[in-house]
Amino acid sequence: MSDSLVGPVRVVGAGLLGTSVGLACRRAGLEVQLSDISHQHLRTATGLGAGRAAVDGDTAQLIVVAVPPDHLGETLISELATSDAVVTDVGSVKSEPLREVLAASRQHAHRYVGSHPMAGSERSGPLAATASLFDGRPWAVTPHPDAAEEATALVVELARTCGAVPVVLPPDEHDRAVARTSHLPQLLSALVAARLADAPPEHLVLSGQGVRDVTRIAGSEPGMWLQIIGANAPAVLDVLAEVRAELDAMMSAVATGERTELERLLDLGVAGTRAIPGKHGAPASPTASVFVAVPDHPGELARLFADAGDSGVNIEDIHIDHDPGRAMGLVEVVVEDARAEQLLKSLESRGWETHR
Amino acid sequence: MSDSLVGPVRVVGAGLLGTSVGLACRRAGLEVQLSDISHQHLRTATGLGAGRAAVDGDTAQLIVVAVPPDHLGETLISELATSDAVVTDVGSVKSEPLREVLAASRQHAHRYVGSHPMAGSERSGPLAATASLFDGRPWAVTPHPDAAEEATALVVELARTCGAVPVVLPPDEHDRAVARTSHLPQLLSALVAARLADAPPEHLVLSGQGVRDVTRIAGSEPGMWLQIIGANAPAVLDVLAEVRAELDAMMSAVATGERTELERLLDLGVAGTRAIPGKHGAPASPTASVFVAVPDHPGELARLFADAGDSGVNIEDIHIDHDPGRAMGLVEVVVEDARAEQLLKSLESRGWETHR
Repeated sequence: MSDSLVGPVRVVGAGLLGTSVGLACRRAGLEVQLSDISHQHLRTATGLGAGRAAVDGDTAQLIVVAVPPDHLGETLISELATSDAVVTDVGSVKSEPLREVLAASRQHAHRYVGSHPMAGSERSGPLAATASLFDGRPWAVTPHPDAAEEATALVVELARTCGAVPVVLPPDEHDRAVARTSHLPQLLSALVAARLADAPPEHLVLSGQGVRDVTRIAGSEPGMWLQIIGANAPAVLDVLAEVRAELDAMMSAVATGERTELERLLDLGVAGTRAIPGKHGAPASPTASVFVAVPDHPGELARLFADAGDSGVNIEDIHIDHDPGRAMGLVEVVVEDARAEQLLKSLESRGWETHR
Repeated sequence: MSDSLVGPVRVVGAGLLGTSVGLACRRAGLEVQLSDISHQHLRTATGLGAGRAAVDGDTAQLIVVAVPPDHLGETLISELATSDAVVTDVGSVKSEPLREVLAASRQHAHRYVGSHPMAGSERSGPLAATASLFDGRPWAVTPHPDAAEEATALVVELARTCGAVPVVLPPDEHDRAVARTSHLPQLLSALVAARLADAPPEHLVLSGQGVRDVTRIAGSEPGMWLQIIGANAPAVLDVLAEVRAELDAMMSAVATGERTELERLLDLGVAGTRAIPGKHGAPASPTASVFVAVPDHPGELARLFADAGDSGVNIEDIHIDHDPGRAMGLVEVVVEDARAEQLLKSLESRGWETHR
């Protein structure tokens, strides 16, 4: 077993992730063999240059299983049984497929190391694939105690080859992490959005940017999420139980008007937002917002960002507030706290209507 | 009582909202009288040109009470008792101050019509004020059955004078609306963020754009929220109870693996996100995202938006994905579904690395 990725790489499942892995490996000059139960997906992926169709007798150094969560365990087991390759997968949950692999094929399990690129798109299928999908994204690599060191090293190298930043952690730790950072936000976003589904239109017209931010991910198609949540049920239930206990505490604090308890819960929320790492993994630095009124037609945003660029202030984030009344948008430009005043003055000197 | 706003307007409370109302009324040429228990706030607000300090013997056509929720009822009652003016307020909750007004001064209540501009900032105080704070924002006007029609008309005209879009609805309806569209998202965002507060750093490094969106508003200072939630406790409890029932259903569906029930809940979420009105109050039209890799230094965003502007496609929204690994940001440009391909091709022809 070599710990240097030289290929060939076989990708099983030519959807968004699999085809993107193929494209990224081809970009790095590696031989890529593709397979998919859908001939159409396979034709599309090979047509995009993600690799050639796998044929009988092919051997590979590394096999990347990129099938939906429901089929992950069985596919991993079959690939381990029919090859001598290191096998990984790109599924969103890591303990359940490992459990299946250990139960069915412990003698091959040293060649299996799971992984999970933190990248996606609201689109799916090979047509949405791109070699740059993983650029700069975290890519979890989750070795188990029986995994060969060389296998782990090879999967780490796959992540780097795809332009991602490898993050090595145990499978159960990964699953608890994504239960918190991905599955819980998805489910609670859906609960908030669900309360809008039957609201009268005159309620919804009062919607601001806050509710739009909180509910944005609730617009995702449920199909894949059903499989992901199902595969990570124990960790998701643990964190939902914590939330339920705090929701009960919150309701009782609201009912009794006990502000100390409600304040404790809101303070915890503030602490949580500050705990999320900032850009480039650095600790989040304090930011401030400058609001700018922007006429709603092509070219105006460009003019704004040209002027903002000239101010020498780096933009950390942007939000466009959808204006219910006029052909004018309010753009929130988030910059480093210490530079906000500089940006504001610079924009005002160029005629923009701004406020903080 | 005239239903045409000619002034003078008295603003009680020269914080962010009150001072902004003063600035907007001055912009429209109206006389504005300001008062605040803080001499410093008053000096700042008058210094900014939001009006002159109120003096004994002043009379006003319209009094705008812009004090914190905890002091709203008492201030409304005192202003109604000591003037003949129409009185409104700009508080976030409408039933509770009305209840206090009706209990204490029913003979003056026809001159009171509450209101609530849907505008704010993460900053507070008069220094953050601006005449354009309300431009294009919804401004709820909440007449009660005993309110004089002329009083309602005057408050509607105040909203228009401030550049906002008046939305007339009953006080209890307003409170149910903001419980759903503002208070619930705030509280659930805090519950999601709270789960991150004690998470190990290696969990948090897997945070993607989703959890950042969901938890953004949880970073607000709790102080004002404690007052707002307290004043709207009944409506907030109603909607929290609905959420709790659905959270229980969700937990039981996850525990038993019953996908039909979980799918029903996620589908409701999708329906809710589609119910939020789109830009300019129009029904939300289908959008699609184009992802663009952008080097993280000043000027690059400007170049991107200049190129996007040249493509003739109108940008509906933008998200910047904070890249934990490299000096490269991933910018998500949201455009009308039918124009996404055009934008993508146009950006690619100018050398941008893009994907959908």
